[in-house]
Amino acid sequence: MADLSTCPPLTRESVQTAHKRIEPYIHRTPTVTCETLNTIASTAQSSRKDGQPDTIPSAGTAKPKVRLFFKCENQQKIGAFKARGAFHALGRLIEEEGAESVRRRGVVTHSSGNHAQALAFAAKTHNVPAYIVMPTISTPSKIAGTKSHGPEVIFSGSTSDEREAVVEEVIKKTGARLVPPYDHPDIILGQGTQALELEAQAEDLIAQDSSLGIKGKKHLDAIIAPIGGGGMLSGICTAMHGTGIKVFGAEPNFEGANDAELGLKAGKRVEKVKTLTIADGLRTPVGHIPWSVITDKGKLEGVYSVSEEQIKAALRLAMERAKFFIEPSAAVPLAVVLYNEEFRSMLEREGGEEGWNLGVVLSGGNTTMEAISKLFAAPAKTEERAGGKVGMNGEKVAENVAG
Amino acid sequence: MADLSTCPPLTRESVQTAHKRIEPYIHRTPTVTCETLNTIASTAQSSRKDGQPDTIPSAGTAKPKVRLFFKCENQQKIGAFKARGAFHALGRLIEEEGAESVRRRGVVTHSSGNHAQALAFAAKTHNVPAYIVMPTISTPSKIAGTKSHGPEVIFSGSTSDEREAVVEEVIKKTGARLVPPYDHPDIILGQGTQALELEAQAEDLIAQDSSLGIKGKKHLDAIIAPIGGGGMLSGICTAMHGTGIKVFGAEPNFEGANDAELGLKAGKRVEKVKTLTIADGLRTPVGHIPWSVITDKGKLEGVYSVSEEQIKAALRLAMERAKFFIEPSAAVPLAVVLYNEEFRSMLEREGGEEGWNLGVVLSGGNTTMEAISKLFAAPAKTEERAGGKVGMNGEKVAENVAG
Repeated sequence: MADLSTCPPLTRESVQTAHKRIEPYIHRTPTVTCETLNTIASTAQSSRKDGQPDTIPSAGTAKPKVRLFFKCENQQKIGAFKARGAFHALGRLIEEEGAESVRRRGVVTHSSGNHAQALAFAAKTHNVPAYIVMPTISTPSKIAGTKSHGPEVIFSGSTSDEREAVVEEVIKKTGARLVPPYDHPDIILGQGTQALELEAQAEDLIAQDSSLGIKGKKHLDAIIAPIGGGGMLSGICTAMHGTGIKVFGAEPNFEGANDAELGLKAGKRVEKVKTLTIADGLRTPVGHIPWSVITDKGKLEGVYSVSEEQIKAALRLAMERAKFFIEPSAAVPLAVVLYNEEFRSMLEREGGEEGWNLGVVLSGGNTTMEAISKLFAAPAKTEERAGGKVGMNGEKVAENVAG
Repeated sequence: MADLSTCPPLTRESVQTAHKRIEPYIHRTPTVTCETLNTIASTAQSSRKDGQPDTIPSAGTAKPKVRLFFKCENQQKIGAFKARGAFHALGRLIEEEGAESVRRRGVVTHSSGNHAQALAFAAKTHNVPAYIVMPTISTPSKIAGTKSHGPEVIFSGSTSDEREAVVEEVIKKTGARLVPPYDHPDIILGQGTQALELEAQAEDLIAQDSSLGIKGKKHLDAIIAPIGGGGMLSGICTAMHGTGIKVFGAEPNFEGANDAELGLKAGKRVEKVKTLTIADGLRTPVGHIPWSVITDKGKLEGVYSVSEEQIKAALRLAMERAKFFIEPSAAVPLAVVLYNEEFRSMLEREGGEEGWNLGVVLSGGNTTMEAISKLFAAPAKTEERAGGKVGMNGEKVAENVAG
């Protein structure tokens, strides 16, 4: 990784420079709107006829006016925004050390998630050897997904000490440079680039069809994005600083996964988190450098959290209604918009009569049919009714006759 | 429905006129590409490392060169292409009979699927009362989905005789005009409009980035689309006639659902089908008028079919890799491209050294998390390993420490 001392400052201009650097390698993912989700978001929870989690009373009465602009990073290379940071960090490293040196030494990281795939893919693109340290307990599909980009996968124990020990070993043996998943300016600047695109794309969409946005407004008012390690959220804060576009974070609150929210309230970064939230990309506590950005009140407005049931309900709506294939972590900002009554009251108050154009980051789509099935499988029921054959939707089908 | 005698002829020009009529009411859905699916499609089945159905030997050796252009009708209004035909048929009816008469009498259809929702939505848009006859055994989610567009839902038995009797009753009582799901020129012309968009959008994509298409080619070579009742496929055949763009149909073959394929081979339309294929939008036999179009060898090249396992494997790839949220019926053309060795051999032969740009219609996205879960739920396994907590992906997660 490029030395901290030589890194560009965390400014909007640096994000713009980072964007130029990575543009040839990443997708300019689409920004899209969904009338159905706008309607549900702009209806009080207590008045909704559908889209609510089964187990939670629909008591909320806040009724914000809001038009949503979804940034589809689930359609990014490797299926998640992490490609941005990885390409930026590797590009900067090559610029600083020379391609030959980086290709001789290689890069290393420990991750079983999207960062591993992103780094492996960026390394393959630049002909750099990549070493990915993964816990032996990783699921076979994640190991296969990572291996498909051609890195050397090295297994470790699952605690952070065990993983770091293996990374150290790799570095000693190969001289590989560590590319951490979020706690580095080059990663943060790379991840922030998506906000530049979202800002411009929302403006283009509204210019083409003013009905997509709040009446009379030509720009985004705010962006909400997930926060795990904080690389993306601090990047977005950096990119939007000075534009007037407000930035919010969204977190799961299961088993203390809302470490950013709790840390901001306590005025102290939470250093350890132990959670099995379904939003598995957001289980990590916020890193040091992201923390220094998000605690700047001029950069981040606040972090809001949601329950597992709320994440599931948002995930269902995103898939069934908007046809977004996303991973649970990517549904967290939408869940905040739809179900966090504190956020919705704020939205109602701040947006006022006029309302807000709100960018919503869909951070990734790396999940499997099995994982989805595990989340949504209906309780076992008798499948045969009245002796007839029954189809996949539980319907019994009679003979079909051509019209 | 407008009288057959006054319907426009089934020509490309009529489809273009239909397109102008419905454009204000429908989405111009995106056409997108996916490098991963191009790669898998262009690899012989016997050489693939993943993406094959578990239960089928990967013996196929055909190795066509193909670039795929996906028409995302899953993002169409009401979540499926059926909105096109419904808006066209209703618009023509209003033109012919006058809005006042149509609003007094209303429209009626029997369907539990996408056509019911499409007609209900088009009717709501034009302030026309809609009567939808649904079998009592329809799943609650389909009934709720249809009701959400505000029609009067009337229940019937599930055989076609029972359904038609209830429709007759509604017509007697209200004077409502029947809008059939596929066997009518106005429906066919409406459904065909998607091909005009796909043709133009593929051309635009290639003009912007020539790497998206087959080297040196600026246009589509062919389109493949699902066939159930045949409204869409005959519409696409009509729209593409005379352009040089070939048209293919794709069908499930479970329990005789491949009635179009079998009928074309026998030279005789199959009149009845009784199947519970997971591609539930394609259970119907081909209608009379669609049949007259697809048997014209100048219009349709052929129909190819796939097994349930192949549809599932294509559905998995579409979701997990390309992040398309689609219903099983919409995965059938992709399944043919990836797994039907007869189609792949033809593609290799016809495309030759150069290869083909192939449009692939993703016809709809109306499915539920429960239906997906039913298809892909893993066999029950012990979920606790080594005494630790286990996450949704089966991984055991140790304490996370901030970087």
